[in-house]
Amino acid sequence: MMKTNDSLADIISEMKKAESILFLTHVTMDGDTAGSAAALCRAMLSLGKTAHIYTGESFPLNLKFLDFEGFIREHSMLLEEYDLVMTVDCSDMSRFDKRMDLYNRGKLSVNIDHHATNDYYADLNYVEADAPAAGEIVYKLIRESGIEADVKTAEALYTAIVTDTGQFQYNTTTSGTHRIAAELLEAGIDLNYISVNLFQTVRKESYILRAKVLETMEFLENDRFVIAFADRNMFNETGCMPEDSDGISELLRNIESVEVSSMAKEISDGVYKISFRSKNDIDVSKLASGFGGGGHRKASGCTIRGNREKVKALLYPEVTKLFMSSDL
Amino acid sequence: MMKTNDSLADIISEMKKAESILFLTHVTMDGDTAGSAAALCRAMLSLGKTAHIYTGESFPLNLKFLDFEGFIREHSMLLEEYDLVMTVDCSDMSRFDKRMDLYNRGKLSVNIDHHATNDYYADLNYVEADAPAAGEIVYKLIRESGIEADVKTAEALYTAIVTDTGQFQYNTTTSGTHRIAAELLEAGIDLNYISVNLFQTVRKESYILRAKVLETMEFLENDRFVIAFADRNMFNETGCMPEDSDGISELLRNIESVEVSSMAKEISDGVYKISFRSKNDIDVSKLASGFGGGGHRKASGCTIRGNREKVKALLYPEVTKLFMSSDL
Repeated sequence: MMKTNDSLADIISEMKKAESILFLTHVTMDGDTAGSAAALCRAMLSLGKTAHIYTGESFPLNLKFLDFEGFIREHSMLLEEYDLVMTVDCSDMSRFDKRMDLYNRGKLSVNIDHHATNDYYADLNYVEADAPAAGEIVYKLIRESGIEADVKTAEALYTAIVTDTGQFQYNTTTSGTHRIAAELLEAGIDLNYISVNLFQTVRKESYILRAKVLETMEFLENDRFVIAFADRNMFNETGCMPEDSDGISELLRNIESVEVSSMAKEISDGVYKISFRSKNDIDVSKLASGFGGGGHRKASGCTIRGNREKVKALLYPEVTKLFMSSDL
Repeated sequence: MMKTNDSLADIISEMKKAESILFLTHVTMDGDTAGSAAALCRAMLSLGKTAHIYTGESFPLNLKFLDFEGFIREHSMLLEEYDLVMTVDCSDMSRFDKRMDLYNRGKLSVNIDHHATNDYYADLNYVEADAPAAGEIVYKLIRESGIEADVKTAEALYTAIVTDTGQFQYNTTTSGTHRIAAELLEAGIDLNYISVNLFQTVRKESYILRAKVLETMEFLENDRFVIAFADRNMFNETGCMPEDSDGISELLRNIESVEVSSMAKEISDGVYKISFRSKNDIDVSKLASGFGGGGHRKASGCTIRGNREKVKALLYPEVTKLFMSSDL
């Protein structure tokens, strides 16, 4: 498949021609996919179009504030056919897999994304692998379209960018990203409101869980590797779900000596989902792929069946091998 | 005392005239005071001046990367007299109290700050209470001076701004702040290097402490108030210092239901230093001032003598009163 971008101008022209548009977000909704879809949907609504977003899942607590007009809860409220179906932040069709029937309701499909692995699955494709967030591409698209962005559109775009850049800390962040943030602030967004919603909506129970998880920390390789565990009984005791332990791998990577951090969650009885994060140069995709998982150099994951002891017995020798090969 | 700003132009002119300059940071060094001083010092060194910074304390782990030329370790290496002594991010003289003798070694003193409470103690004063960081004022000063800022100067300025804005999340952040960040990125700073240093240098022991602290969480007022404790024995058991529990109040404020978070650290036997953080409208300076402390609406602190039970017995009724008055 040729990976050639269509022009934003052509995409804008199709959007303006369409009377009805459906936006699809990726599974395990995040700020970038939800914010990008919300912004585009508002832009289309402002032109008097019929515009819908269908996520197929409920909003996480920290994104509920983005639940603007356009997000459709009931499958039955959707149209049988749309002039355009547009996906945001979806590198391939598996990202909206269970909604393939909806994707096929579009007379034309458009794919807007920022993943280098995007496989250009749609009729029109626009992928910028350098963009730190799909929201940054959507910002450009809306600006080029000449559509006036209201405050809520600006809030959605800011949300997409601030979440996918790790609050402007990931090194995908450029001066252009900051200039866009400046313009979004000038559009009148309420920074405190967005920040409180995005980052200050942690469930109380998840901190109780976090205390228990931190107590399980084990260090290997002169404290350069750390792993922590969240077993089923810990979820049950604290009234937490596996997603309440999201973010702990990143937290553990913040330890000074740590080069690779890892978090093992027992997502169902005897099944551990394990995530790996790398601080600098060690490639953790190797660790994950050894167990049938995958990912990138700095973030990867896999699944291992067994109890905590079995996970350790299988994983620790591979960690040692990884550090040995990285030390060469 | 009249609170009238001198002009940046006058301050720049004095800096250019001076042959020797000493910069003073505030006690309990943070990214803003250290970054601002480092940037100004480098600017002066680039003009061939004798420029020193004396902090009177060691660098916290996450700021060690700022330890550029100019930072003087040995008191005896300082000059007997400086043409100029300049303080950064110090709202009053108590902020560099133990170095008053050094402040007095200046023929002329300059005070650059962004605290509304600044009492204009120096010969020349420039205070911008709206600036989210002293570093933002220093950025303007260096730009106005026409001095070429090198990459390390840009890194120091970025550090000042990113730390004092809470990664651009505090609502003191403006579009101007983002435009400055854009220019600093364009100056070639290494974002990953700075981020890893600032935010990924947590001591392993401090996470072991954090687990214990989170287990002490107590909720009042329908989960709108939370407090956690770090007692002496917890520091001893984990090999931590009180500063290893820094940031936990802010962490606790991230809980969805919480309006006011609090952290009580036993800084010496039977002496608890208590910090308060407010999420939205509740004014926590009232809570602190009732115990002889002080601070701002959203961040305050006080000291209470006694054991953990006594702290609770004294504090909890005041918390209830605060919420009752806020509910009116």
